[in-house]
Amino acid sequence: MQQPGRLIGLGVGPGDPELITVKALRLLRESPVVAYFVAKGKKGNAFGIIEAHLQDAQNLLPLVYPVTTEALPAPLSYEQVISDFYDEAAEALAAHLDAGRDVAVICEGDPFFYGSYMYLHDRLATRYEAEVVPGVCSMLGGASVLGAPLVYRNQSLSVLSGVLPHEELKRRLADADAAVIMKLGRNFPKVRAVLEELGLAERALYVERATMANQKIVPLDQVEPMSSPYFSLIIVPGERWQG
Amino acid sequence: MQQPGRLIGLGVGPGDPELITVKALRLLRESPVVAYFVAKGKKGNAFGIIEAHLQDAQNLLPLVYPVTTEALPAPLSYEQVISDFYDEAAEALAAHLDAGRDVAVICEGDPFFYGSYMYLHDRLATRYEAEVVPGVCSMLGGASVLGAPLVYRNQSLSVLSGVLPHEELKRRLADADAAVIMKLGRNFPKVRAVLEELGLAERALYVERATMANQKIVPLDQVEPMSSPYFSLIIVPGERWQG
Repeated sequence: MQQPGRLIGLGVGPGDPELITVKALRLLRESPVVAYFVAKGKKGNAFGIIEAHLQDAQNLLPLVYPVTTEALPAPLSYEQVISDFYDEAAEALAAHLDAGRDVAVICEGDPFFYGSYMYLHDRLATRYEAEVVPGVCSMLGGASVLGAPLVYRNQSLSVLSGVLPHEELKRRLADADAAVIMKLGRNFPKVRAVLEELGLAERALYVERATMANQKIVPLDQVEPMSSPYFSLIIVPGERWQG
Repeated sequence: MQQPGRLIGLGVGPGDPELITVKALRLLRESPVVAYFVAKGKKGNAFGIIEAHLQDAQNLLPLVYPVTTEALPAPLSYEQVISDFYDEAAEALAAHLDAGRDVAVICEGDPFFYGSYMYLHDRLATRYEAEVVPGVCSMLGGASVLGAPLVYRNQSLSVLSGVLPHEELKRRLADADAAVIMKLGRNFPKVRAVLEELGLAERALYVERATMANQKIVPLDQVEPMSSPYFSLIIVPGERWQG
């Protein structure tokens, strides 16, 4: 019987192609199948990061999201549509794995830090050998370009989604020594309002597409409310420790 | 006048030498001076990670911690001793920078994620050009080897220090969707007790020296209470989202 292939969750870093690890680059080159999530009609950030390293003999397997928003007209539910999509994507990968081919799923940032790869891992890692190669996640890429030390000593770091309701966001931010708020996009006005209410707006730093070629750093109070892309984040660095 | 050198905070990843980024490797090779923090009589984890890439012409600048514990006999205070040490280390770097030599400070994990580099950055980044190269931090290395997706969708992640007092640790963990507890060492028994009190012990995963050659994964209830090294961590992964 054919020895099955290996599933590889491959973190490729936050955007700058040079921020891929040596290990991810090696496994990328060794993988006969390269899978990646992508929005319809787009190239995909992860794909853009590794494109220059691909070889002709490699099989590309784009996994195209069926929806671009979580707000779907009834009777459709986002949870059901996306769950079916991950089921199908997992089976597309399984076909290659069953045929003995390793499949590298390239992931922007880190595979296990809010990555879509997690849904494939949950479906396949019990059936196939799986390896995850960690990557530099977007919040660390963001801190580096902002020149913002994130957490000192015994400070606690809270990583929060901008999707959280106003009150929960406020409660969690009020309790944080340092914080990173991801998934801004249309949640930006709410997040900025919460930071202002807490008196944290002046300590907060904002960056769009950190480490990518089109990176943009803007003072928080100058961000156009509805212009913030999904790949933007806010960092509230920990108070400097005088060590 | 001599053009001053550049300060470079160089994240070299969590331990596996292959988990260094392509960019960090390039800047490491290009840097005439390579500085690193190290305990007296030790080689240092960060140094071990990059040792094989060093060239004879490079200047090595070990920054040897004056103390190995925060509990010092009166009238010494840890804060004062360590602050003096960082002042002196910064001046040692400044001498090279003033002479026009770039200095790469190699950092295990990521420079801005609980890294000693932060104290040099705070002292020098206003006087010299500084660049920070983010790295794969230990919690992402840990999640990868544990096969543990960390945070799903809009879950909040709390990164906590094991040094926190019992009650604060308990309060923060009770409020977390997912958590990473760093700096275990002799704090391990307290941390495990808190996880048990909260009914989280079965969901929690433990790893020592993740991705290093001497990595050890042990079920939480089988860890010898006082054997846990400083470079161990506990992950409480977010509840799987059924997407």
